[in-house]
Amino acid sequence: MNRHSLSLLAAAALAASLAHAEEGMWMPKQLPQIAKALKAGGLAMDPAKLKELTQFPMGAVVSLGGCTASFVSPQGLVVTNHHCAYGSIQYNSRPDRDLLKNGFYATTLADELPAAPGSRIYVTVDMKDVSADILNDKTRALAGKARTDAIEASEKRLVAACEADAGHRCNVYSFFGGLQFQLIKQLEIRDVRLVHAPATGVGLFGGDADNWVWPRHTGDYSFYRAYVGPDGKPAEFSKDNKPYQPKFHLKMASSPLNEGDFVMVAGYPGRTNRHRLPTEVDFAFGFDQPAKIKAYGESIELIKAETAGRREGEIKMAARMQGLQNTFKNYSGQQQSYDGSDILARKTAEFDRLKAWVNASPERQQRYGADIAAAESLIAQRQATVKAEYLMGYMSPVLLSSARQLYEIANERAKPDAERKSGFQERDLPRLRAAQQSLERRYDEPTDKRLAAHFLAQYLAQPAATLNAAWLNALGLQAGQDEAAIRARLDALYAGSQLADTAQRLAWLGKDVAAFKASDDAFIKLAVALYEDGERRENRDKELAGKLQKAYAGVQQAMIDYHASRGEAVYPDANSTLRISFGKVQGRTPGSDGSNWTAFTTLRGIVAKHRGPDEAGGEFNAPAEQLAAIKARDFGKYYVKGLDSVPVNFLSTLDTTGGNSGSPVLNKNAELVGLLFDGTLDAVISDWDFNPKMVRSICVDARYMLWQMSKVDKTTRLLEEMGVK
Amino acid sequence: MNRHSLSLLAAAALAASLAHAEEGMWMPKQLPQIAKALKAGGLAMDPAKLKELTQFPMGAVVSLGGCTASFVSPQGLVVTNHHCAYGSIQYNSRPDRDLLKNGFYATTLADELPAAPGSRIYVTVDMKDVSADILNDKTRALAGKARTDAIEASEKRLVAACEADAGHRCNVYSFFGGLQFQLIKQLEIRDVRLVHAPATGVGLFGGDADNWVWPRHTGDYSFYRAYVGPDGKPAEFSKDNKPYQPKFHLKMASSPLNEGDFVMVAGYPGRTNRHRLPTEVDFAFGFDQPAKIKAYGESIELIKAETAGRREGEIKMAARMQGLQNTFKNYSGQQQSYDGSDILARKTAEFDRLKAWVNASPERQQRYGADIAAAESLIAQRQATVKAEYLMGYMSPVLLSSARQLYEIANERAKPDAERKSGFQERDLPRLRAAQQSLERRYDEPTDKRLAAHFLAQYLAQPAATLNAAWLNALGLQAGQDEAAIRARLDALYAGSQLADTAQRLAWLGKDVAAFKASDDAFIKLAVALYEDGERRENRDKELAGKLQKAYAGVQQAMIDYHASRGEAVYPDANSTLRISFGKVQGRTPGSDGSNWTAFTTLRGIVAKHRGPDEAGGEFNAPAEQLAAIKARDFGKYYVKGLDSVPVNFLSTLDTTGGNSGSPVLNKNAELVGLLFDGTLDAVISDWDFNPKMVRSICVDARYMLWQMSKVDKTTRLLEEMGVK
Repeated sequence: MNRHSLSLLAAAALAASLAHAEEGMWMPKQLPQIAKALKAGGLAMDPAKLKELTQFPMGAVVSLGGCTASFVSPQGLVVTNHHCAYGSIQYNSRPDRDLLKNGFYATTLADELPAAPGSRIYVTVDMKDVSADILNDKTRALAGKARTDAIEASEKRLVAACEADAGHRCNVYSFFGGLQFQLIKQLEIRDVRLVHAPATGVGLFGGDADNWVWPRHTGDYSFYRAYVGPDGKPAEFSKDNKPYQPKFHLKMASSPLNEGDFVMVAGYPGRTNRHRLPTEVDFAFGFDQPAKIKAYGESIELIKAETAGRREGEIKMAARMQGLQNTFKNYSGQQQSYDGSDILARKTAEFDRLKAWVNASPERQQRYGADIAAAESLIAQRQATVKAEYLMGYMSPVLLSSARQLYEIANERAKPDAERKSGFQERDLPRLRAAQQSLERRYDEPTDKRLAAHFLAQYLAQPAATLNAAWLNALGLQAGQDEAAIRARLDALYAGSQLADTAQRLAWLGKDVAAFKASDDAFIKLAVALYEDGERRENRDKELAGKLQKAYAGVQQAMIDYHASRGEAVYPDANSTLRISFGKVQGRTPGSDGSNWTAFTTLRGIVAKHRGPDEAGGEFNAPAEQLAAIKARDFGKYYVKGLDSVPVNFLSTLDTTGGNSGSPVLNKNAELVGLLFDGTLDAVISDWDFNPKMVRSICVDARYMLWQMSKVDKTTRLLEEMGVK
Repeated sequence: MNRHSLSLLAAAALAASLAHAEEGMWMPKQLPQIAKALKAGGLAMDPAKLKELTQFPMGAVVSLGGCTASFVSPQGLVVTNHHCAYGSIQYNSRPDRDLLKNGFYATTLADELPAAPGSRIYVTVDMKDVSADILNDKTRALAGKARTDAIEASEKRLVAACEADAGHRCNVYSFFGGLQFQLIKQLEIRDVRLVHAPATGVGLFGGDADNWVWPRHTGDYSFYRAYVGPDGKPAEFSKDNKPYQPKFHLKMASSPLNEGDFVMVAGYPGRTNRHRLPTEVDFAFGFDQPAKIKAYGESIELIKAETAGRREGEIKMAARMQGLQNTFKNYSGQQQSYDGSDILARKTAEFDRLKAWVNASPERQQRYGADIAAAESLIAQRQATVKAEYLMGYMSPVLLSSARQLYEIANERAKPDAERKSGFQERDLPRLRAAQQSLERRYDEPTDKRLAAHFLAQYLAQPAATLNAAWLNALGLQAGQDEAAIRARLDALYAGSQLADTAQRLAWLGKDVAAFKASDDAFIKLAVALYEDGERRENRDKELAGKLQKAYAGVQQAMIDYHASRGEAVYPDANSTLRISFGKVQGRTPGSDGSNWTAFTTLRGIVAKHRGPDEAGGEFNAPAEQLAAIKARDFGKYYVKGLDSVPVNFLSTLDTTGGNSGSPVLNKNAELVGLLFDGTLDAVISDWDFNPKMVRSICVDARYMLWQMSKVDKTTRLLEEMGVK
């Protein structure tokens, strides 16, 4: 693991090479460790300022939950990726008002549209190490489910205390696989509105074909606005609400961005797996991701087939489709890099070195030996369960999942709040309600039925002894049944449920357990019938999780101590918490086989790739107004002489992953120069195995965004608000 | 036009820059003009040898009629592109013996398969200027149709005399748009057999998606063999035939090919339009090519829809589909380069300079003035006809076209051979028979009917007054009818014809005009009914052609004289005759927007692009055996250290166009280093407007071909025959 660690002792000596091989998604509190590297890389401000969450610039960087964004005006204007706002654009689209296709621009504040239900803007205000609270002596003495429950109880207690400060959302995040915990406090803005999104032909130019691809020409940006109540505090949507006034916002760059320039990105990367054990790597690429690639690929084909020619169905499935295609392509890219590589051999050798280091000292053997021994067998247990049950994640009709969630809410609400399961407390109800509400515009019955029948048939084709009897009994299915038989059963179930009706569905949020038990709605009845089996499996998983937490944390501690003994610090794997990466604008040689990648693409490439609405699935369909502006060379001040055009996207050496999408890319003065939105397919394996020669992040150049807004979409109000003259 | 001409007087001074900006598809007889440039470029042999058609190396270069090929063994083994042999591979494929998909390798001579009917190998043995014969005093005195007829009569007379030498095919080719004529004599080998084709996953790797694209990874090669009778003379297929023994064949390169190396290509480029008048350029890009792009695009979609799920239909339509997609993408690329460019303005300015030069001298005005004035108005007349009738080229059912050809044959056979129309003499009958025969494996009724109905509906939607009354009457259709009404009429026509039966169809080749008139076969009856209108339109076109030949030749002569006055020579536009281009191996900066192109691709790119049979339309589906050999790094002697792999395709500055496909690419010693097979989409406009910075030809590296044959397909017999140890 030495390849992804930074020597503390030799930081100064390493500074030069770090500037060429940036690796690491650093926690703000770790920034003093890399201050010299940041300065050497070109940062013009004091690196210490970057660790202050409530100062400039970090105070301007926000989370959307799954994506990153940033304030770009004193009136709460937020910029993120088009693909991060996609759900809200879709939610507000109808065949007669197709915002996906045509884009959207609110010409006044009053025209700004409510984002999809559940949309949030989170402003991180505090991060606190709570490892000692969570893993207190009492908890450390427990094993299995009791340990899991104790950890969960501590987390709930900390969260409840933190959220006593109204308008805030608090969460405990695990670092190093359950070894350390941080309590993170965020201002939770609940009234989020869609302000501007370019047409799909800009925001999603290149579509799935260009996803994870360079050269790239995607205008992947959109704007939200944060609204708060008249008192300035977070509030639900109301027409009386006013724009939120953030303490800090980012300003557009005042100097041009060039190849070689220092850039940094602050954001919320979701998940990396660089510290995983070899057995986990083996399982991920030997079973888990291949199974997902297969299931996602099949889902994509089925959704396409079921929505072909039905624009309403296409719109309803659009957000899910985009997610499936994105992950499908990412996992396929990872798998291609992995197959035939020496990754597992290297991971195994690294782990063997760690074990050798442990075994070389009786004291270390005493401290870590048992955990290391236990971890692998516990992981094997978990993997066996995943293998047996993975298809259950695909085969459930959406309305059955909805019913089961509603029934679980009813069961949990019968308990005092503090005793409810995590995710089902009072604090979680708005989010749960929003999810149930959103189904209204994301549920397409023909597609849902087709998917359920398809995966149920796969599930039932497995050996009878491995199947879940509770499910078979409840659904009235049996091993070996074909899709036609399953389909007949599903037809009856769908016909016997009112849950597709949003009012009916939401009404269940207020009902008690007895009401569920008395219902004859087909999916509600099923939810009741499956409840006991669900609890059994959940408890089984908690028992294993408790054992695994102990062993896994021990292994991670051994890993950290091993590196510390060598003077090396380790950054934790990404876990959706705020991180900072730095690097520079840089092309890649070699790029893809037969080409070298330059750092910037230009408007010329849009013209070259444009195929119109009927070719290439309409994925390369630049708007006519944009093409006209390019043809007229109406470049304005966004013209870059060296490119003889306006820069569109650029490559950087930034170390990022999913969740970083929408992150502001900052120059050496922390001015906004772009938005991060993608990586390249031949380097997505970096989530598991970082390779500085290959890793490049793809960013929208802010000049392209501003050019399009200024010359094509004429979003004058926003440009003025952002201080662009 | 000065940009595509070569100063004779300053040739030596230009040699260095020529080596960097090669332009020109030179006639062999012009080679003395560029000898110095060839030497300066790196040619190691005597340039004078290249003009000897019956010596090495030109004696080894052959035409397939539409493609180029070359002898690579003393036993008549011929290498060309996979896409040039595609028709023969398709012709020999059936669902249960899918050579398109699986490839083909004849392990012995006896296993070699007859190529598609009509396949020929032409070895050029003589080229002779016959301008004075064709445009003799008598002909020069004629105008209109009489002039066209006189030219055609002279051509037929020259051809007949030339073909008195049995086994030869002779043709008169027009250069500079009817200004000059060459009689070209070729040995015509009629027994052509398919020897080896790699699987589609190699030979067509990347499919339509990668067509005209760099980086490229296509193994676009296949092998034929020329057979002759036991007497060594060309003969029809017979099992008694023996491999033809060419006097010369190409040898594989004995030294590695590197970036910057000199290369040249000898081949049969089909058509360029660099000397066209501005009005022709305007019409091509203002009407003609856009109309074709639309019609081809629609045809592609209809064929896809009608053959989806029917592998038999797909195979039958495969060759046509490949041709449509290829031209569609080429024309779309040309159009994209043209739209918004200054091409027309430059062509107009060039033509204006020519006119100014003419007008500056009373003598020149006298010599060229009338022709220049006439040419533009005659061209406008021709364009009006094209506009009115272009849809007629798409709307005819294939069997109706077949019937009309059969009836024309019957009409012409009633005349003495010398008086028959060109294309319908005795010498043409084998080719006509082969075309009628080939339909057997290329006719798919549902697709044909769909296409005919679609384009007939478009035709009938035009103003009634512009429609061809003879066609309406004969087909029983009327202006404005919709596709359903047309479909009903077509159903009756198709049902009333036996022409889909190959035996029945071929039987008509032996019948006389009376038999046609007495027939009640629906398509034969139609052919008879349409005959008179066909003759009328043909005569109308001949009348115009005669006028236009005189005027157009005058304009071209003025153009040549204008350049001569400036010391510049002009190479003629490509016209399917033997030409030589030279250049070097070279990448391109910039390549596409956001990337620079390196000169070579490698096996790594195949692995990176591979998507399997189910993704991306199966277009990136490398064979498992090939992927295994790459994974095992079983590179053998084809390994190139600088690439750490085997080179797959390379870029060169060679000036080529369609028809050059399959051309041998030769190194400075005239050894075979690759096969030319494509250009890049952003430079196909070079057919009209050459740009040395942009133009690159894409070649299969011979090392890839030999690696695949040696390590994957194990075509040992062929490798030994080619002298590869």
